[in-house]
Amino acid sequence: MSATRSIRTAALLATGEELVRGAIVDTNSAWIARHLRRLGIELVEVRVVGDQQPVIAAAVRELAARADLLLIGGGLGPTPDDRTRDALADAAAVPLRAHDEARAQLAAYFARFGRTPSPSNERQLLLPAGADAVPNPRGSAPGIALELAGAKVFALPGVPGELRAMFEQSVLPWLGERLAEPPFREVVLQVVGLPESVVGERIARWMAADGPPRVSDTVRFGVVTICAADRDDAAGRARLAACVSGMEEALGEHLFAVGERSLAEVLLDELRARRATVAVAESCSGGRIAAALTAIAGASDVFLEAAVTYSAAAKERALGVPRPLLEQSGVVSEAVARAMAEGIRERAGATWGVATTGIAGPSGGSAAEPVGVVYLAVAGPAGSVAVRKHFPGDRDSVQQFSVIGALDLLRRQLRAR
Amino acid sequence: MSATRSIRTAALLATGEELVRGAIVDTNSAWIARHLRRLGIELVEVRVVGDQQPVIAAAVRELAARADLLLIGGGLGPTPDDRTRDALADAAAVPLRAHDEARAQLAAYFARFGRTPSPSNERQLLLPAGADAVPNPRGSAPGIALELAGAKVFALPGVPGELRAMFEQSVLPWLGERLAEPPFREVVLQVVGLPESVVGERIARWMAADGPPRVSDTVRFGVVTICAADRDDAAGRARLAACVSGMEEALGEHLFAVGERSLAEVLLDELRARRATVAVAESCSGGRIAAALTAIAGASDVFLEAAVTYSAAAKERALGVPRPLLEQSGVVSEAVARAMAEGIRERAGATWGVATTGIAGPSGGSAAEPVGVVYLAVAGPAGSVAVRKHFPGDRDSVQQFSVIGALDLLRRQLRAR
Repeated sequence: MSATRSIRTAALLATGEELVRGAIVDTNSAWIARHLRRLGIELVEVRVVGDQQPVIAAAVRELAARADLLLIGGGLGPTPDDRTRDALADAAAVPLRAHDEARAQLAAYFARFGRTPSPSNERQLLLPAGADAVPNPRGSAPGIALELAGAKVFALPGVPGELRAMFEQSVLPWLGERLAEPPFREVVLQVVGLPESVVGERIARWMAADGPPRVSDTVRFGVVTICAADRDDAAGRARLAACVSGMEEALGEHLFAVGERSLAEVLLDELRARRATVAVAESCSGGRIAAALTAIAGASDVFLEAAVTYSAAAKERALGVPRPLLEQSGVVSEAVARAMAEGIRERAGATWGVATTGIAGPSGGSAAEPVGVVYLAVAGPAGSVAVRKHFPGDRDSVQQFSVIGALDLLRRQLRAR
Repeated sequence: MSATRSIRTAALLATGEELVRGAIVDTNSAWIARHLRRLGIELVEVRVVGDQQPVIAAAVRELAARADLLLIGGGLGPTPDDRTRDALADAAAVPLRAHDEARAQLAAYFARFGRTPSPSNERQLLLPAGADAVPNPRGSAPGIALELAGAKVFALPGVPGELRAMFEQSVLPWLGERLAEPPFREVVLQVVGLPESVVGERIARWMAADGPPRVSDTVRFGVVTICAADRDDAAGRARLAACVSGMEEALGEHLFAVGERSLAEVLLDELRARRATVAVAESCSGGRIAAALTAIAGASDVFLEAAVTYSAAAKERALGVPRPLLEQSGVVSEAVARAMAEGIRERAGATWGVATTGIAGPSGGSAAEPVGVVYLAVAGPAGSVAVRKHFPGDRDSVQQFSVIGALDLLRRQLRAR
C-alpha cells in the first residue's frame, strides 16, 4: 500500500482464549468501532478467535484482503500462549527478528519502574522482518505495524488501557493523514422527562432525514440520549450547529445537557451556581440518589446528607414524619413523600429536600398501588411538590427510574424559580 | 449432517449496524461462549458484521464450513435492514417461503397482548425452504434452524432477552443429545479479605494442576471469584467435590459463598438467621452500602436505615458524634468511624451499626491520610471494632472497595460470635 492511499474500510481481529471461553466481554471492539465511525471509516468485520497460531494467521490473511486497515488486539504478551507476532510473520511469510527499537522501548519501560526485563520478555522484542514497533506508553509489550496484502496492519496488546493509549497515540495520527473525507464531529444531547417516542416526534425533522447530519438516539431509565454527527468541515459544522440548535429549541426544558455529563453532575452544578444545598430522604431508592450525587467529585459542597429510611420508625424518628400521617396515608403516599422531603430539608438545614417512597418490588404491591408506583417529592424555599409515577421493569429498574425521576423533579424546580 | 453426529465445534455470527458502529457492545457472544464451554464445545470463531446481505451470506458460508454448529444473532426483525433470513436463503441457495408454523407462532404472540400483526411482520414469516421455525417466547421474531454445508445453523434474534430464552429453550436441549463428551459442571467460590495472590497460593494445588478439574479466578474490588469445572459424569463430579471441599478448607473464614450470591445477599441472610438488624452510617461510601443492601429483595426486614452524613454537622446532628471528637480526631479517623457506627446503631435501635469515613478523592488527601484511606467500623452488642484501609484506584474504586470492606467487617463480627 502506498503511504498516500486513503483508508476507507477497516477490520478488527481480537485474539484470546478468555474471549472465546466467554470469561470476558470484548469491549475494545466497540470502543475502536466508535472511533472509526467518527473518522468515517467503514468497519466491515470484527472477528474473535482463540490463541492458535494457524487460526490467527488465516484470519490475518483473510481480513487484510477485505479491508484497507486491520487492527489486531491481543496476543503480544511474554507467555507462550501469546501468538500474534508469530501469526503475523506466518501470514506475511517473513521470519521474526529481534527489533532494536522494540528493545530500546522495553528497556525504557522497565527502567521507569526500576525493574529489569525477565528472559520471557525477550519474546516481545521479536517482530516480523520489515515491521515497525509501535510504542506502548503503559506496558511492556510493543505493538507491531506492517503492510500486508495491500492493507496496513496494527497489532496492539489486548489490555484495554494499553490498546486505547496506543490507538490514540499512534494509530489515530497515522489515520488522520489518510482519510478519504473529513472525519465526523459528534454532539450529544440528553433529555429527561419525555418518552422516547415523543422525543422522536419532536426531532423527527432531523432524525427521519437520514442526514447529514445523521441523528440517532438511545434510551435508558428515562434518559434519552441523542447523537448528531456530521463531517468536521465548514459545511458539516454549519449543518450540525443548525441541527443542534433546532433540536435544543424543540426539546425545551426537557433537555438537561449538551454533552456527556450525567444528570447528577448537571444538577450539582446548577445548585452550586445558586449557592444552594440539598439533602435527600430515600425509601424505595435505597441510597441510590445519595450514591449518584456522591459519585461526583466535589459533591460535598452541595450535598449535605441523606437519610435512607426503610422502616416506618426511621421515617418518624429521623425525618419527623408524624405517626398519624404514616398510619392514615400509608408509607407509600404523596403526603408522606412531601413530609419526608420537608423533614430532611429542615433537619439538614438545606435549601432543598428531595424524597422518594414507593414499591420497588418484587412483592409489596396492591391493586391500588402496584409494584413500580413511586412518589417523588421536592421541598424548597417556597413549599413542596410531589408526583406519582408508575415505573416499569424489575426492582433494579424501578430504583434506577426513581433516581432519575427525583433528580429531574429538583432540576425542574430550580428552573422554575 | 446426520441427526446423531456429535457437536464438537461452534462458531458465532452477530449481525447489526449498531455493533459495527460501536453503539452497543456484543454481550450475547460471551454469554453463549460460557454455555458452550460448559458443554465442552470448542468455540472456533466469533464474527461481527453489519446489515449487508452479501456480507452476511458470505460469513454464513465460511463459518458453516468451519464448525459443526453455527449460531447467528440478529437481523430477524420486521424492518428492511433485517437481512439474516434473506442471507440464509442466499447461502443455502434456496428460496424464502412463508412458513405455517412461524405464522401460528406469530399470531399466538400477538394474541397474548391483544394486538394484531402489522404488514411488516409478514416478513418475519418467511423462512428459507426446508428450514424449521424456532419458537420465540419473548418476541415476535421466530428463529430459524437449518442444515448447511454439514453444519447445523440456528438464527436467533439479537435482543439479549429473546436470544437467551430461545437458546435455553430450543438450542440447549438439541445440543444436549449431541455432545461428544459429558458437559461440564461448574462450582463458584467467592472469597473476600485476602489478596488474589494469597488466594492463588492457598489453592495452588488445584489451580496449577491445569485440571481436571480446571480452576481459574478473577478479582474485582476485593472479591476473588474462583471457578472450578469438571465433566458432569460420576468421575468428574467426584473430582469436583474433592477439589471444592479442599479449597473450602484452604480458604477458611475468607470464603463467604459457594455459589453466585453477592456479599450483601449473604450478609442479609446471616443477619436474618440471627434475627438481627443493621443500620448504616456512610461518609465516603456515599450511600452505596445502603444501595447494595436494598438492591436485594426483602432487605427491609433486616436493614432499618442509613444516614449518609457527608458534612461534619450531619455527623454531629444525625449520629450524635461529639463535636470535640470531630475537631480533635478529624472526620477521617478511627474514633469518628466508631462513634458513627455506635451512633447509628443506637438511634436506629439496630443490633448492628456499620460506618465508613475516608477520602475517596480525587482531592482531599494529605501525607498522613492520602486519597484512598478509609476507616471502617462495626458496632454491636459487645462493643465496636474499627480498621484502617488504604484502597487503590480512583474515586469509584475507593467507594466500591469501601462497600465490600464494610460488609465484610460485619460478616466477620457475626462469625466471631
